[in-house]
Amino acid sequence: MPRYALKVEYHGAPFAGWQRQKDLPSVQGAIEAALARLQPGPHTIAAAGRTDAGVHALGQVAHCDLQKDWDPFRLSEALNYHLKPAPVAIVAAARVADDWHARFSALERQYLFRILMRRAPATHDRGQVWQVQRPLDVVAMQAGADMLLGRHDFTTFRSTICQAASPVKTLDELRVEETEGFCGPEIRFRVRARSFLHNQVRSFVGTLERVGAGSWTPEDVRAALMARDRAACGPVCPPQGLYLERVGYPEDPFAPA
Amino acid sequence: MPRYALKVEYHGAPFAGWQRQKDLPSVQGAIEAALARLQPGPHTIAAAGRTDAGVHALGQVAHCDLQKDWDPFRLSEALNYHLKPAPVAIVAAARVADDWHARFSALERQYLFRILMRRAPATHDRGQVWQVQRPLDVVAMQAGADMLLGRHDFTTFRSTICQAASPVKTLDELRVEETEGFCGPEIRFRVRARSFLHNQVRSFVGTLERVGAGSWTPEDVRAALMARDRAACGPVCPPQGLYLERVGYPEDPFAPA
Repeated sequence: MPRYALKVEYHGAPFAGWQRQKDLPSVQGAIEAALARLQPGPHTIAAAGRTDAGVHALGQVAHCDLQKDWDPFRLSEALNYHLKPAPVAIVAAARVADDWHARFSALERQYLFRILMRRAPATHDRGQVWQVQRPLDVVAMQAGADMLLGRHDFTTFRSTICQAASPVKTLDELRVEETEGFCGPEIRFRVRARSFLHNQVRSFVGTLERVGAGSWTPEDVRAALMARDRAACGPVCPPQGLYLERVGYPEDPFAPA
Repeated sequence: MPRYALKVEYHGAPFAGWQRQKDLPSVQGAIEAALARLQPGPHTIAAAGRTDAGVHALGQVAHCDLQKDWDPFRLSEALNYHLKPAPVAIVAAARVADDWHARFSALERQYLFRILMRRAPATHDRGQVWQVQRPLDVVAMQAGADMLLGRHDFTTFRSTICQAASPVKTLDELRVEETEGFCGPEIRFRVRARSFLHNQVRSFVGTLERVGAGSWTPEDVRAALMARDRAACGPVCPPQGLYLERVGYPEDPFAPA
């Protein structure tokens, strides 16, 4: 059976998360239902990152196996047709090797987190940003972020329900930038690692927001990391500013031939 | 009664337009209802531009009269509190002279129109852009746009239900730019004039899209203008890419003191 990689974009609001769940809408379930319109199911697809309820994706990657040979572009068109009106889009598709795996072949994941800084309630960006009502100090936040780079025991920044075998991970990038968004000033975090613990990015952002607000110093972030204690974490921030932005593979399956 | 200018941002989707209508949700109605929570009504507010159903605003301007002296910041906070959960936000408020008028004091209006160019259905930007599935030639579109600058009889680009006394208007700016949006390449139009005819911007954009797609030449735009005939217009584009971006006054009422 030929295997296809799918690059998937979605708005997380209507979903209980990526993973298929009984009686709850999920992104995985929506795509599997669309696949069943092309070929009788059941279908079980795998993804690079299992995003939580309310979390978005710009470049999630999944793979599926189909009996028929599909032209990748026609496959994406057919899936998009059957996905409507769910806010899920296949933005690219590619034929991959039979042993290629969206999750296990991935070398790294990159997340984007958006904070909108303004007083008035968000209108156009509602549900797509975490809104904070006061300006944040981006220089202090970056100094705090720098404390987290590298290989560490990230127990402090890991949900108590995390199922990873080890809390030791290597954080390759945590960039904090201020930018002018469509509806006001935003802080954008770019966070990159081979893999993440459950709630790790939201634990980072919630903690760094405290630094930006002046309640924590950058040194406090280092102390929290060193504590290796979930209780030392700052508040976990809400999901709606989080986007799975990119998944890296040894070779980009979607690169033009 | 002290008069206050309000800078208003809104998402147009849930509204039948700016103007209050019996039994239909409107932006004007939502703000007047919030004002009635501060001071018994009825209230009647005036706005610089009466946007159609589905059209958004980043910088609509309205004014209201209140019996009490309000600190402008506290007024905006109180209105935003009562506007929830409608996607309408007062992003600034200012005390203005008693004869200042949001509509009649305005010197110019600026609209933004967003086209998203990509094949896969929009997810995050759905309802906030006009999506076209093929790339458009931005140079040709700008050449077509240039034909429309200046003082003309714009009968071709005017809705048949337009109530303006004259079809003669002066178009001060029509800029066409390609930019990388959050979910793909966008064409952004910036259109500026003292005032506009009904459906004028959407008639421009729909016509210029034909130029970008290669169906029309820039010269065809000039011929359509010269025809002074509604039937010579290209297709009127949908409302959801349109934003009232800015209203210009002799003095900016919202400028920091």
